[in-house]
Amino acid sequence: MSEKVLRFLDEQRPATPCLVVDLDVVGDKYRRLTKALPLGEVFYAVKANPAQEVLARLAQLGASFDTASTGEIAQVLALGVAPEKISFGNTIKKQADIAWAHARGITLYAFDSEAELEKLAAAAPGAQVFCRILIDGEGALWPLNRKFGCEPRMAANLLVRARDLGLAPYGVSFHVGSQQMQPEQWDAAIAAAKGVFRQVAEAGIDLQMIDLGGGFPATYNAPVSAIDAYGDAIMAAMTKHFGNDLPRMLLEPGRYMVGDAGVLEAEVVLISNKSYDEDRRWVYLDIGRFGGLAEVEGEGIRYRIRPVRKMKGKDGPVVLAGPTCDSADILYDKANYQMPRDLRIGDRVRIFSTGAYTTTYSAVNFNGFEPLKAYYI
Amino acid sequence: MSEKVLRFLDEQRPATPCLVVDLDVVGDKYRRLTKALPLGEVFYAVKANPAQEVLARLAQLGASFDTASTGEIAQVLALGVAPEKISFGNTIKKQADIAWAHARGITLYAFDSEAELEKLAAAAPGAQVFCRILIDGEGALWPLNRKFGCEPRMAANLLVRARDLGLAPYGVSFHVGSQQMQPEQWDAAIAAAKGVFRQVAEAGIDLQMIDLGGGFPATYNAPVSAIDAYGDAIMAAMTKHFGNDLPRMLLEPGRYMVGDAGVLEAEVVLISNKSYDEDRRWVYLDIGRFGGLAEVEGEGIRYRIRPVRKMKGKDGPVVLAGPTCDSADILYDKANYQMPRDLRIGDRVRIFSTGAYTTTYSAVNFNGFEPLKAYYI
Repeated sequence: MSEKVLRFLDEQRPATPCLVVDLDVVGDKYRRLTKALPLGEVFYAVKANPAQEVLARLAQLGASFDTASTGEIAQVLALGVAPEKISFGNTIKKQADIAWAHARGITLYAFDSEAELEKLAAAAPGAQVFCRILIDGEGALWPLNRKFGCEPRMAANLLVRARDLGLAPYGVSFHVGSQQMQPEQWDAAIAAAKGVFRQVAEAGIDLQMIDLGGGFPATYNAPVSAIDAYGDAIMAAMTKHFGNDLPRMLLEPGRYMVGDAGVLEAEVVLISNKSYDEDRRWVYLDIGRFGGLAEVEGEGIRYRIRPVRKMKGKDGPVVLAGPTCDSADILYDKANYQMPRDLRIGDRVRIFSTGAYTTTYSAVNFNGFEPLKAYYI
Repeated sequence: MSEKVLRFLDEQRPATPCLVVDLDVVGDKYRRLTKALPLGEVFYAVKANPAQEVLARLAQLGASFDTASTGEIAQVLALGVAPEKISFGNTIKKQADIAWAHARGITLYAFDSEAELEKLAAAAPGAQVFCRILIDGEGALWPLNRKFGCEPRMAANLLVRARDLGLAPYGVSFHVGSQQMQPEQWDAAIAAAKGVFRQVAEAGIDLQMIDLGGGFPATYNAPVSAIDAYGDAIMAAMTKHFGNDLPRMLLEPGRYMVGDAGVLEAEVVLISNKSYDEDRRWVYLDIGRFGGLAEVEGEGIRYRIRPVRKMKGKDGPVVLAGPTCDSADILYDKANYQMPRDLRIGDRVRIFSTGAYTTTYSAVNFNGFEPLKAYYI
């Protein structure tokens, strides 16, 4: 918990809903991760929170950046970050966007299909390319699926094809799933990546990089392992599968880096019951799924939510919902949230670890509500 | 299908993704609905598409407006619409927002709980209030749930309480579910509303209005009944339950009014296979769930999607996905979409009936992508 954020909220009482992010926590997370995995190079996943203040703080600490679009690349370059420290990590890119990035000196690109390779060969000749492989993200709370990556056998063939197209086959990437609760999940993924290294070596290609993805957790309502446990598990798997011949190791933390740095303050707009027989209250906040809390979809990500005012008495069951006229705008229904029975309309609540995947998910103007406002301190 | 929109897209070739809305179709839908239900008063659900051009066209035709927030109210008032033609239809309102609306002459307010009534009594004394009742939205493709409304017995008690608080108990509302495919679903809801009329009459209260909600469909990939069938079913149910003593009848169409008026044009960014064993292609567009197509969640709303270029040969199975690095950004996976095998990267596709619930659902800047651009012609 950031004292600085709580003091800011207490003293400034900004209009709700709003997010406050402590940049020192971001810096602290960066230092912890690099200490837990000294051989890893941090490519911050800009999409998690692309605020200029966050990017500047991380750039200052020496981070590199994983980007999803020309918009994100432009933002990072504008901070004076060297293009070699930027990865165009989206496997789905328009050829015109690849050309745009190439013209600005971006050298590192992700792909997972032959068609994407052909675009890269045409628009970024000679670029370093790495292939994303499909693995199953067991143990992740925001599980990935088959949208990204290809089977390892295909990856090996595509990396050979990359060479034939005049590109530099550079490495392999994977993602074990966002908010991955099990550090041991990296082992099988690293083994699969090593398999690709081995196969392409037979074709005379010496891959130099493994991108270990993100997945490092923020702190929601269940305890997570310390980042050191992730570092230990990953290094153990790396030496198990690669021995002493370790490739360059990239990390793409997003949620881990900014999630815990943010606290969202919201107001209780309404508390009601639907019928005389139901004990469970409906608590409506002035933020919902379309105002920034999109990740509550499926109720996998369970934020800690606490009232600001000290409350006496017991908790009782609630459904938590957002302020829009959209019936899908419910935060937690099945997750059995409890809130104090003393909670009243007008009370403020704090939603913790909301620094990642909130501000930019926010809808432009749904139901006439403004996008989420954020302060970076 | 609007010839005007297709001509605009063919001639202008605007950058993708973009939405083009034909205002004449909006006007046509308005006229058809008022013809199908001459006794109904149309309160357009602004949230479906709050573009100034849409609101202005409907205002000119004499429509009233159902609003969700002070932002929407301000927008409608700015067009010169009289405050009596505006309903503050969100059952979840901050007291300060009620006071704001009351100061601007808004007289009609929705509620579904005692706490909301108390806010209304404090901030909008004397206002006309109507209570939303819970019904089950069987047959709807974007089903509502228990987020809005209370049981009818509670509604009757709350309407009596409204009078005691110095408010004017005015009517009952319900919503049969958005994109409601079964016109007969109104019958049970109207019966329940009539029950509330009867109960409060015993307390000497003469309710004057029934708000029949929205639910009137747009045309997605399954045939829908003509709007006349909805009009007929509703009038049959009204006369069945209310006889000749018909109250004022409000309608809140949103999707129906603007959905079919819009065509979204997008570009194919990538076509790929995940493995050598899989016939199904992954087709990635430059628009996805976070760029405006939020309603594909759960794959209930199935848009018609067609390539612009004439294609020869057969169709084959596809997964359709968006351009972001978010694995949840998949449009259709389980819905068994087919696209021509001849489809290529760079092809443009048109997504039909996308005039409702697209632009404002769009995320502000997710993954560095701009919000959906729209043209109103």
